[in-house]
Amino acid sequence: MEQIKVFAPATVANLSCGFDVLGCCLDSVGDEMLIKKNDLNKIRITKVSGQELPMEADQNVAGVAVKALLGEIDSKQGFDIEISKNIKPGSGIGSSAASSAGAVFAVNKILGEPFSSNQLISFAMQGELLASGNAHADNVAPALLGGFSLVRSYCPLEVLSLPVPPELKVVVLHPMIEIKTKDSRSIIKQNVSLKSAINQWGNLGALVSALYTEDYELLGRSLQDEIVEPVRSILIPYFQELKKLTAENGALGFGISGSGPSVYALCKGDQTALKVKNAMKEFYSDKSIDFDLHLSGINKKGVKVL
Amino acid sequence: MEQIKVFAPATVANLSCGFDVLGCCLDSVGDEMLIKKNDLNKIRITKVSGQELPMEADQNVAGVAVKALLGEIDSKQGFDIEISKNIKPGSGIGSSAASSAGAVFAVNKILGEPFSSNQLISFAMQGELLASGNAHADNVAPALLGGFSLVRSYCPLEVLSLPVPPELKVVVLHPMIEIKTKDSRSIIKQNVSLKSAINQWGNLGALVSALYTEDYELLGRSLQDEIVEPVRSILIPYFQELKKLTAENGALGFGISGSGPSVYALCKGDQTALKVKNAMKEFYSDKSIDFDLHLSGINKKGVKVL
Repeated sequence: MEQIKVFAPATVANLSCGFDVLGCCLDSVGDEMLIKKNDLNKIRITKVSGQELPMEADQNVAGVAVKALLGEIDSKQGFDIEISKNIKPGSGIGSSAASSAGAVFAVNKILGEPFSSNQLISFAMQGELLASGNAHADNVAPALLGGFSLVRSYCPLEVLSLPVPPELKVVVLHPMIEIKTKDSRSIIKQNVSLKSAINQWGNLGALVSALYTEDYELLGRSLQDEIVEPVRSILIPYFQELKKLTAENGALGFGISGSGPSVYALCKGDQTALKVKNAMKEFYSDKSIDFDLHLSGINKKGVKVL
Repeated sequence: MEQIKVFAPATVANLSCGFDVLGCCLDSVGDEMLIKKNDLNKIRITKVSGQELPMEADQNVAGVAVKALLGEIDSKQGFDIEISKNIKPGSGIGSSAASSAGAVFAVNKILGEPFSSNQLISFAMQGELLASGNAHADNVAPALLGGFSLVRSYCPLEVLSLPVPPELKVVVLHPMIEIKTKDSRSIIKQNVSLKSAINQWGNLGALVSALYTEDYELLGRSLQDEIVEPVRSILIPYFQELKKLTAENGALGFGISGSGPSVYALCKGDQTALKVKNAMKEFYSDKSIDFDLHLSGINKKGVKVL
């Protein structure tokens, strides 16, 4: 195989109670990437469209992730990477993760799949390290595995795939203000009260249970975050108003997507999701902030060949 | 119904990564309680055998729990409570929880079951408040519901029952030194690092997943606690040696039962559990500390009528 074109999906990380360990994969938002072998023994970013990204392979998350993969098998094979970017960098729905995950998935395919999806996660995490200063897995794991991913352990890396309740839909609102993941991480307190931590792990345990039992109401009740949301939500315009609005329109739960500024609402069924989306659209339309709105099912496959 | 005799089971709370939110119910260790109506409009502790317990109803966890129940329906009905105590107070396997849970279960039965098991948990928690200064639910919930209980939320109280992998066995070693739950709580730091908290909720999420998928190895890997165990284990003689020993003999995981000093090992199958039990027995036999050892299945029913 000389080249491959892939769809690299957006992801919603954290999901309120699952800070740094949980994420899910979207199916209607994502980038396209074309990866070709070259004979130059070099990784090159040959084309970026849709958004501006670094063209220097060492400064581009896709380049860094591919180099991590090739380094593992001491391969000198060169690749040209073209990225058609639909996910806006800094939006909070895994823009860097999509590029990292898509690139390592594609290169792995071209090389005859020497690595498992789980191994690809650790290479893609090198892209996250470049993007945010932190090699987190809660976007790259669901981008590669699809569905819901839970990071049980970072050292050694162990990621579980959790079941996807069939009627689950995600509405994502991206207010177009810039919050860098690095900055958004720096405002989080490095110590938390034991009481809040107990509430958080009680909710995360319940969320996992709700995914297995397809208990949508329980899933909604468990989407709580008293550790990160109170700090980060201050940076997101109209966060509390949107939370109230989405609940009134039947959303199961609402919170910050990744490090923001995007926010997500989980909904049961297309009809409710559409209602929630329309309510958010109407609310935000008279605010002086540009925004994107997405309604998506959960992508159970992750990165895929186009 | 004028009287009822019940079996009130021991429980293992926390289970390492589930501090204050998780517990499971044992089937071969527990108290017997006989509860009879009286015509005195009074709750009386009329007999305690096996262990010494307060005979004053307001100082006895069973008395306090029953009063909480009766208070809810403004009942003046009196009850006599006899407790045949097999679970040693202060052992860390839910001695107070068994008395509280057994008492409210029995009184509820006699009164024609005005309350659900979930409601009984909140009454039994009043007994825990008396015993430890903290109305925790991670012993009383599994004592009443059986199996594994997860406390999603304390306010409002919401408890989930989780599935029980069929081959799961518990070995409990009780070194007979006294650690009061109150004291054991007071040494825990009220602030924890975010990094440790993240690891803890990653493990708890994985533990819940493992119960649904009957993945015994994953269950074992998730039994980690870097928040409470490092502090409390110092009070438990030979904790690290026992941890190593149980792992070498095939236990899935090992940790502190409740607030200690009992320790638990989860095992797959009777044969491994017996091997682990025998290894613990041999190890502790030449130490100068008396001890009890229990091997139990998971009790899926909780308190039951005898």
